[in-house]
Amino acid sequence: MTSGFFNGIERIQYEGVDSQNPMAFRHYNPDEVILGKRMEDHLRFAVAWWHSFAWEGGDPFGGPTLERPWHPQDDMGRARMKADIAFEMFELLGQPYFCWHDADIRPEQGNFAENLNALEEITNYIGEKMQVSGTKLLWGTANMFSHRRWMSGASTNPDPDVFAYAAATVKSCIDATHKLGGENYVLWGGREGYETLLNTDLKTELDHMGRFLNMVVEYKHKIGFKGTILVEPKPQEPSKHQYDYDAATCIGFLRKYGLENEVKLNLEQGHAILAGHSFEHEIAVAAAEGMLGSIDMNRNDYQSGWDTDQFPNNTPEVALAYYYILKAGGFTTGGTNFDAKIRRQSIDAVDLVSAHIGGMDICARGLKAAAAMIEDGGLDAALSDRYSGWNTPKAASMLESSLEQVYDRVIDEDINPAPKSGRQEILENYVNRFV
Amino acid sequence: MTSGFFNGIERIQYEGVDSQNPMAFRHYNPDEVILGKRMEDHLRFAVAWWHSFAWEGGDPFGGPTLERPWHPQDDMGRARMKADIAFEMFELLGQPYFCWHDADIRPEQGNFAENLNALEEITNYIGEKMQVSGTKLLWGTANMFSHRRWMSGASTNPDPDVFAYAAATVKSCIDATHKLGGENYVLWGGREGYETLLNTDLKTELDHMGRFLNMVVEYKHKIGFKGTILVEPKPQEPSKHQYDYDAATCIGFLRKYGLENEVKLNLEQGHAILAGHSFEHEIAVAAAEGMLGSIDMNRNDYQSGWDTDQFPNNTPEVALAYYYILKAGGFTTGGTNFDAKIRRQSIDAVDLVSAHIGGMDICARGLKAAAAMIEDGGLDAALSDRYSGWNTPKAASMLESSLEQVYDRVIDEDINPAPKSGRQEILENYVNRFV
Amino acid sequence: MTSGFFNGIERIQYEGVDSQNPMAFRHYNPDEVILGKRMEDHLRFAVAWWHSFAWEGGDPFGGPTLERPWHPQDDMGRARMKADIAFEMFELLGQPYFCWHDADIRPEQGNFAENLNALEEITNYIGEKMQVSGTKLLWGTANMFSHRRWMSGASTNPDPDVFAYAAATVKSCIDATHKLGGENYVLWGGREGYETLLNTDLKTELDHMGRFLNMVVEYKHKIGFKGTILVEPKPQEPSKHQYDYDAATCIGFLRKYGLENEVKLNLEQGHAILAGHSFEHEIAVAAAEGMLGSIDMNRNDYQSGWDTDQFPNNTPEVALAYYYILKAGGFTTGGTNFDAKIRRQSIDAVDLVSAHIGGMDICARGLKAAAAMIEDGGLDAALSDRYSGWNTPKAASMLESSLEQVYDRVIDEDINPAPKSGRQEILENYVNRFV
Amino acid sequence: MTSGFFNGIERIQYEGVDSQNPMAFRHYNPDEVILGKRMEDHLRFAVAWWHSFAWEGGDPFGGPTLERPWHPQDDMGRARMKADIAFEMFELLGQPYFCWHDADIRPEQGNFAENLNALEEITNYIGEKMQVSGTKLLWGTANMFSHRRWMSGASTNPDPDVFAYAAATVKSCIDATHKLGGENYVLWGGREGYETLLNTDLKTELDHMGRFLNMVVEYKHKIGFKGTILVEPKPQEPSKHQYDYDAATCIGFLRKYGLENEVKLNLEQGHAILAGHSFEHEIAVAAAEGMLGSIDMNRNDYQSGWDTDQFPNNTPEVALAYYYILKAGGFTTGGTNFDAKIRRQSIDAVDLVSAHIGGMDICARGLKAAAAMIEDGGLDAALSDRYSGWNTPKAASMLESSLEQVYDRVIDEDINPAPKSGRQEILENYVNRFV
Repeated sequence: MTSGFFNGIERIQYEGVDSQNPMAFRHYNPDEVILGKRMEDHLRFAVAWWHSFAWEGGDPFGGPTLERPWHPQDDMGRARMKADIAFEMFELLGQPYFCWHDADIRPEQGNFAENLNALEEITNYIGEKMQVSGTKLLWGTANMFSHRRWMSGASTNPDPDVFAYAAATVKSCIDATHKLGGENYVLWGGREGYETLLNTDLKTELDHMGRFLNMVVEYKHKIGFKGTILVEPKPQEPSKHQYDYDAATCIGFLRKYGLENEVKLNLEQGHAILAGHSFEHEIAVAAAEGMLGSIDMNRNDYQSGWDTDQFPNNTPEVALAYYYILKAGGFTTGGTNFDAKIRRQSIDAVDLVSAHIGGMDICARGLKAAAAMIEDGGLDAALSDRYSGWNTPKAASMLESSLEQVYDRVIDEDINPAPKSGRQEILENYVNRFV
Repeated sequence: MTSGFFNGIERIQYEGVDSQNPMAFRHYNPDEVILGKRMEDHLRFAVAWWHSFAWEGGDPFGGPTLERPWHPQDDMGRARMKADIAFEMFELLGQPYFCWHDADIRPEQGNFAENLNALEEITNYIGEKMQVSGTKLLWGTANMFSHRRWMSGASTNPDPDVFAYAAATVKSCIDATHKLGGENYVLWGGREGYETLLNTDLKTELDHMGRFLNMVVEYKHKIGFKGTILVEPKPQEPSKHQYDYDAATCIGFLRKYGLENEVKLNLEQGHAILAGHSFEHEIAVAAAEGMLGSIDMNRNDYQSGWDTDQFPNNTPEVALAYYYILKAGGFTTGGTNFDAKIRRQSIDAVDLVSAHIGGMDICARGLKAAAAMIEDGGLDAALSDRYSGWNTPKAASMLESSLEQVYDRVIDEDINPAPKSGRQEILENYVNRFV
Repeated sequence: MTSGFFNGIERIQYEGVDSQNPMAFRHYNPDEVILGKRMEDHLRFAVAWWHSFAWEGGDPFGGPTLERPWHPQDDMGRARMKADIAFEMFELLGQPYFCWHDADIRPEQGNFAENLNALEEITNYIGEKMQVSGTKLLWGTANMFSHRRWMSGASTNPDPDVFAYAAATVKSCIDATHKLGGENYVLWGGREGYETLLNTDLKTELDHMGRFLNMVVEYKHKIGFKGTILVEPKPQEPSKHQYDYDAATCIGFLRKYGLENEVKLNLEQGHAILAGHSFEHEIAVAAAEGMLGSIDMNRNDYQSGWDTDQFPNNTPEVALAYYYILKAGGFTTGGTNFDAKIRRQSIDAVDLVSAHIGGMDICARGLKAAAAMIEDGGLDAALSDRYSGWNTPKAASMLESSLEQVYDRVIDEDINPAPKSGRQEILENYVNRFV
Repeated sequence: MTSGFFNGIERIQYEGVDSQNPMAFRHYNPDEVILGKRMEDHLRFAVAWWHSFAWEGGDPFGGPTLERPWHPQDDMGRARMKADIAFEMFELLGQPYFCWHDADIRPEQGNFAENLNALEEITNYIGEKMQVSGTKLLWGTANMFSHRRWMSGASTNPDPDVFAYAAATVKSCIDATHKLGGENYVLWGGREGYETLLNTDLKTELDHMGRFLNMVVEYKHKIGFKGTILVEPKPQEPSKHQYDYDAATCIGFLRKYGLENEVKLNLEQGHAILAGHSFEHEIAVAAAEGMLGSIDMNRNDYQSGWDTDQFPNNTPEVALAYYYILKAGGFTTGGTNFDAKIRRQSIDAVDLVSAHIGGMDICARGLKAAAAMIEDGGLDAALSDRYSGWNTPKAASMLESSLEQVYDRVIDEDINPAPKSGRQEILENYVNRFV
């Protein structure tokens, strides 16, 4: 027996592009084979517990709008009701995965031990539901930014007791993730950064964060957790500055602290935009270093300077994201998590389900376009051609030469290079054949 | 005999804060001792050849406005006239340094060998003027972004011939810098990046850029150049994306290619702003890694999304920049280069000189405020106090512990940290006592 | 007997610029006469009830941090305690004014009538405290954006019942403002705008907003409220787009709906920044139309894309704001309201008081600098000179001519204008003599 | 006989969506009837002389890259060659219109009279080519921002002689537009604004700009020019602030100076983005006032803070733009001008043609999607439903009531409105069925 929350909504079916049924998939067809793999196995969709079930509809200028039966989320009974509803929606959507923070799934209690008990209890409850439904855990994570204890950071807090509390919290969340068969564990450092440099010892904080992450990696190996440890770049908000600013910054951090072979990136469209990058840029940067882990799919309003976390809805943009993911070999442990929330005016159950239908469809459409571009090979061919000069022995040997040797060659051969067209518009037109 | 260009303008003198003479320094007093060092030796001002003498006043929507006697800059005669004028202004301002790109000082010729000859000739001419005047070279650099040959990048160009031409160019510019006793050599990669990912092999380009920079460092050691090699972060413009995005990105790049002990950063206020950072943030990030080299002092209009390169004019901002520079030990080979240009409506000689007077005065005022804060010690004391918890053996040992050990302690001791005020407004008020 | 909340903090005194007492004014000296008027009467400071007493410290990623004794704010007893505390702080600071929204001062009740009763009761209570303390009401306003009923707008809501509720709410708030002797009444339309154009009838909504504001103005006259009606520009947040985007947009709106002689603007620094303007720009635009009403003084972090509402702390910026206010004749019914909040890590009572001390001091310092520039007359003189060409009869008559007449003159007289320097850097240096 | 510049490129044909020919239209089929009108007559494409023929490929950090045979553009012979080439491209593309600034088509001469002669001569030459080819003039305009005489503005210049020169220039350009049968005349005030408020008398400048525009309108009527006078919003660049900031600002300006029935808007996607708006927002704002005139179609890179003027390439965005244009009744005298330029690396003739093919195809695709949404009626139906409450007599009469009457009703009827979903995601999914 269901809760009735989704009354009137049936299991969402694939009906094809000609369907005018708003409660059907027009593009997402899980079993359709794309580049030799089922669409579901490419996309590996996950629903996010926080936006879809924990968020109450507030924003900086307004209170809750959603008023779900399981709000407020301050006792275990409503935590279980929330889990029931979640799995009802998973059943409707048929997506293979979900994700959570500890604070999404259990109510806040008086101290660490009590929080731990609550986490144990609710993850056991969720585990049973996973058994029944077959829905899997893409990743778990610890919310170390909402409670006031984290107001000055977690692993970077000036107070060592908060560092300790953070370490204990992450251990408990990795344990829970491991218990539930999670395929990754994510760290997002929303308050690992600063509000003002005036009160911040940046070097010490970074060193603490580096040590903390090493402790996490050591623990993962100790308990035999096979999932990937992921960090998630974001430039700011809530902090004025966040240390995990963007992909390049995170990669530099990981290399400095000896973690470049242990930790990968969980990239988010909205965070890329806030950092001044396109999403495909962040993916390409991570891929170039072999550090592409997973994605938080959403979109940021281009005219808003904060994290709008909207559902993706622009096929050309999503197609480029999947193009670079496919070029990097596709997801292994990672997937497509909808770190996206309905607008706070979208207060009905049908809004919540529709938003996911739309998001899944856009991603499926983007994936198909990306795969078609790969099969056609036009972009690869253009790239090979543009860099083909480097395939000559002379060019290759130059990279082994000294500055003077190259200088001598320029003078001896009177090298005077002529510009060649970059072909940007032609390539953009090419992409538009597919999206 | 002078050119007459600066007719009516006398050597700028320090007259103190009560002076109402717009053609006097009110704060910059070279010999005044601050924290045990002459103000001139702290600030190490440099005038930039490109903005002050080469720029003709154009912008994306308009042509030249300045119409100097040495424009257009297409023959050696006018190149020498430009040098004459430059040294006349150095004489008026009395700043100890200047900086150039090759393309600022010599006219563009038909091929590399001819450019090299022109560079030789003009640097000999400049060298003689340096002997006479005592003005020194803070740094030289190669302009590898203006000529159409660089339109698709220099060391990251898809065409290996451009890579070769870039290597030869940098060699020639380091040689010239070395000859003139330059104290640093700078690389700014304005077109080392991309216009569209669609035509870009990001990994290959980064590897080429890494190899190129290693070639430069190897050459520096070979010829015994004692100056510092500096790279200069900027997120974009002219490129859509520039690989040297910001300080953290550059540091990650340098570490990846084994250059973290060889290369430092030349940081610019305007570039920091374009990357979404405050200037003091970039300085603090570089300082935390021991990679603070030099600064390009200017300011970006906060409401403009491009590089406005204005003269600094906000004391509180400049004071914080110098505060973090002084905390990092001050400049060694680096200095304060005015990478700043007069507005294109400021067409008179007096505008050019006044802009430098104002910039030097603001920097001097900022330096004095920064020094006063250091002497007072208030910020340091607040910082020590905030992080004092980490001085206990228990806290220190935690950094050597495993995640489980910390977890056990949290449970055993029921650690439940209470937030402590971050004191931001009190610290901001404190700073306002000095600026 | 006081609450004890501010224990240890004494009445803040003016001690002059050499004071090192962080709990003293160094610049704000209420009785000091500036340009013939007491400083207090120029600045007309107000404390904002919402940020200083109602805000609990939450942000989009975190819950309350402040934990005041009067939180949560859900009964009348705590509403009175909040008022007691507020007046204790007014006593410490000695500022002449305060401001409120209805929702700041009374708890939310079940329906309009109950809210009205609560508002009556608390404003009577506040009125008595005003009598005792002498602190006055700068303005009142209605919060028509926090409760979920307003989620789709107030006067622009697609639901006419919400329009009605909004009208009733504004009537009740004007009545309360009138009762308390408020000198202005403000409307900020945080949700008068849209989240998506797709569900928005922009023309209808603007017409409703125009009619609503006319109803407000008609009512003001009917009850004999002598205060000024003010609207407050902001471009976005919480809405994706807000109709009162910036000063120019509001002025256009007021003129369209016949309100240009009835309504003025309440301008905020942070909102100016979010709209892509400097604060002085917004002031100058309003002043040019005679529509400068009042200001919400704060500052926005230049690197953050949301409304950070920090206390002002940059003298050069504040000085320019007051310069244009003074040039417009200074405030009449308006004043300087601190629409500014402490950072959520600043959890102590001393932080709250210090933030106001710093803000008041920066404004006083800015005012003094602005007044000094006016007395010196340098900017005025430069402006007169720059536009002096328009003082000739020929120039003046040109404005009465036809295009052809001017064309004929250009040909006949071979007019070929020569550019004249705009003197920007010289003027910036001039300003730096005063700030 | 042709110039040979486009050698190898044939007349571009419509081949349908399955074509893989990069030199064919896949969507733009001029004669296809959409909503009862030929596609060509809906879109009314124009090629821009400045970007496509006059621009030499420079940017703020680099010189020309394009090196066309008609560069540099300093004599009448090359001006005619440029016109020949332009009409060769019009022939290839088959678009019905083009646009120009005076400075694009004639070389700069010594004084106004000489410029006028050159303009006469080249417009006669162009007029003959128009006769032969059938290509028409969408609009002409005066470039009053590139030459140094305009550095401090045109009609807003502090120097009345520049105002005079501007008036004469606009007269000459309207005359030329009229002679060539132009359907609109555009004013873009790139330097009608300021670099610093410090040297600017904002009120005087706005009054001069208002008078100037009235002179233009009076002249138009005098000579019987039937085209529409258009102003073009842009927030900044080259100016720090531009008076014609955005649509709402322009509309307010026009109303203030009595021009709301005489002048309409020419809206540009890139300018909308720079002003913090979506393109469809600007269109909807203009349409709500009946002031939608014409569009400059392009796109701005969302990660760049300057005017990138790229060719449009995102169908979902373009579709929404045309949706609101069609809802406003479509173009009358206006059209779709490609104010878009190839990237400076796109140096070949094929790049220039391909960019236009891609742009025309994206617009055609967007138009078809917009028309399909209108035929389907889903958005209209949703909007009608959302605002249906206003159709009751009670709601309508409320707009005629006083604040007190509405207040009484709220109390009497205990109105307590319940939120209704805004349906944003469902509407976004709906749009994605069409784009």
